[in-house]
Amino acid sequence: MSYSIGVDLGGTNLRIAAVNEQGSLLEKVTLATRLSLGRDRVLDDMCQAIRALAAKYRGQGTLQGIGIGVPGIIDMRTGMLRESPNLPGWADYPVRGEIEKRLGARVVLENDANCAALGEKWLGAGRDVDDLAMLTLGTGVGGGIVLGGRIWHGMTGMAGEFGHMTIGPDGLPCKCGSRGCLEVYASATAVVRMAREQIELGMAPGLARVAASGAEFTAETVYRLAAQGDDAAQHIFGQVGSALGIALATIVNGLNLSMYVIGGGLSGAWDAFSPTMFREVRDRSMVYAATAPESSDDIQPDGKTVITRARLGSDAGLFGAARLATVSGV
Amino acid sequence: MSYSIGVDLGGTNLRIAAVNEQGSLLEKVTLATRLSLGRDRVLDDMCQAIRALAAKYRGQGTLQGIGIGVPGIIDMRTGMLRESPNLPGWADYPVRGEIEKRLGARVVLENDANCAALGEKWLGAGRDVDDLAMLTLGTGVGGGIVLGGRIWHGMTGMAGEFGHMTIGPDGLPCKCGSRGCLEVYASATAVVRMAREQIELGMAPGLARVAASGAEFTAETVYRLAAQGDDAAQHIFGQVGSALGIALATIVNGLNLSMYVIGGGLSGAWDAFSPTMFREVRDRSMVYAATAPESSDDIQPDGKTVITRARLGSDAGLFGAARLATVSGV
Repeated sequence: MSYSIGVDLGGTNLRIAAVNEQGSLLEKVTLATRLSLGRDRVLDDMCQAIRALAAKYRGQGTLQGIGIGVPGIIDMRTGMLRESPNLPGWADYPVRGEIEKRLGARVVLENDANCAALGEKWLGAGRDVDDLAMLTLGTGVGGGIVLGGRIWHGMTGMAGEFGHMTIGPDGLPCKCGSRGCLEVYASATAVVRMAREQIELGMAPGLARVAASGAEFTAETVYRLAAQGDDAAQHIFGQVGSALGIALATIVNGLNLSMYVIGGGLSGAWDAFSPTMFREVRDRSMVYAATAPESSDDIQPDGKTVITRARLGSDAGLFGAARLATVSGV
Repeated sequence: MSYSIGVDLGGTNLRIAAVNEQGSLLEKVTLATRLSLGRDRVLDDMCQAIRALAAKYRGQGTLQGIGIGVPGIIDMRTGMLRESPNLPGWADYPVRGEIEKRLGARVVLENDANCAALGEKWLGAGRDVDDLAMLTLGTGVGGGIVLGGRIWHGMTGMAGEFGHMTIGPDGLPCKCGSRGCLEVYASATAVVRMAREQIELGMAPGLARVAASGAEFTAETVYRLAAQGDDAAQHIFGQVGSALGIALATIVNGLNLSMYVIGGGLSGAWDAFSPTMFREVRDRSMVYAATAPESSDDIQPDGKTVITRARLGSDAGLFGAARLATVSGV
């Protein structure tokens, strides 16, 4: 057997997995990302878990390599994080070098959404296609492109930042420095913000009731209300779908790939946002209109453009990170 | 010597050129595109000119092939035009098959902006890069992507339609069926429309004077006034630059290529729109902000993102079409 180790370093959770070459999970370790203790402690935690897994499986197979997905823009040439809104204080930190110093081994560092795209290509929705783009809807919105089975990195490893496409040029400020980015409309953060706006305007009695109850108020709360037929909550997911449709229309017109995969935690609200999303992308993209499949089935018909949900859930990035390490040049 | 024949079939002009393998022009024939006489006559004119060139150079070298650039969305698998707003009535016409029938030879059919991108890669601004995206600003706005020296076609040959990216979701209708497309803000047609709007609002005395003079009123007219310091005309090119900057920010964030080339007739107004364009792309794209060159010099510094004017002017598409025919799989 040969296996590899994948890491998904998130702002909340730090997950480390050993995965064999067929894509079967051998073991997964989930830790809290102790950001408040500083970057060094987080990397110490990570490297300790990696070493423990490597020691445990040493007798059973060959460790092909270690891949690490991190949220943010990575300069692939230097292994530095250039921007990382969800890892405050990590910008311009030589993450790859620090990890390699601790482990005494080479690692592959990759943007987390790129990892998710590769994971979905390897084992998920994109198993049967060569080219796909992925959007991950979470706290922010990430993106990744796979061309010919490999992550498309662009010149410096920064490609696929679809979360920061402009959807509304005069929209709200985004933490990237621009305004009206997709992330401002189609992230879990955006859903909660829009819900609070509706509540303040007095237009969302159902949402106001839940918010006043003292229970945790998240995008999932809003989704549950939408699923129960609450107008205001459904309207919010209509806005999410519309923003995604505008973004997808631009991406489909630009890249003409066979598959677009929507993942991340908020993709669990697929039923609530996807009807508006499909309507918008059909209205706006002549390439989609010319290549849309007859049904929204996610089987890949030849020459058709499929837009579908991710299959691997929150593990896509973890599997993708493991895959990074096994296929050189992926 | 070996040479190839390139064709640029535009809504106004039909140009046919013989180009040798070093990219030197042997001969160029420019005809009017007689659309009013019907598709068959236009193709007859084209094929007659191709045959005449081939006969003339027969003794001097080997004809490597024939490449034809057409405005519109082509289904590469069938050689059909799927959408072609500038060739009314040509949609769903088997253009490639009709040409091959007349010539008794295989031809390569390609979108005109893809041809321009390949031409700029071969002989123009992109000679020293492997990857670039191109925007052609003309009657409409076209786009093309070159990756690894080859046109990126996508699944069905429709990739690169940047002219139909959404810039303003609630903007004016576009002939593609969407609203607020880049083409609605950054084409020669858009410049004339915006000028007429300003005149009607009584906000553009300089433009109104020229329009009333009975002289031809084109995007170039508006540019000349902008160059002379006319406020309203400068404002219009500010809007062109802003729309281009928004579009480029999305493309740069998505693709992270080393070069973006702006061509087409309206790119002659570079001085008028590019300052706003550069400001907008820098403000909106974190990838550009992280990789912008120190100066706007168009030499390609390593790891930097260069946004520059096309070098080949209106011949980019013609040279690109000729190139298509010489490099298999381009």
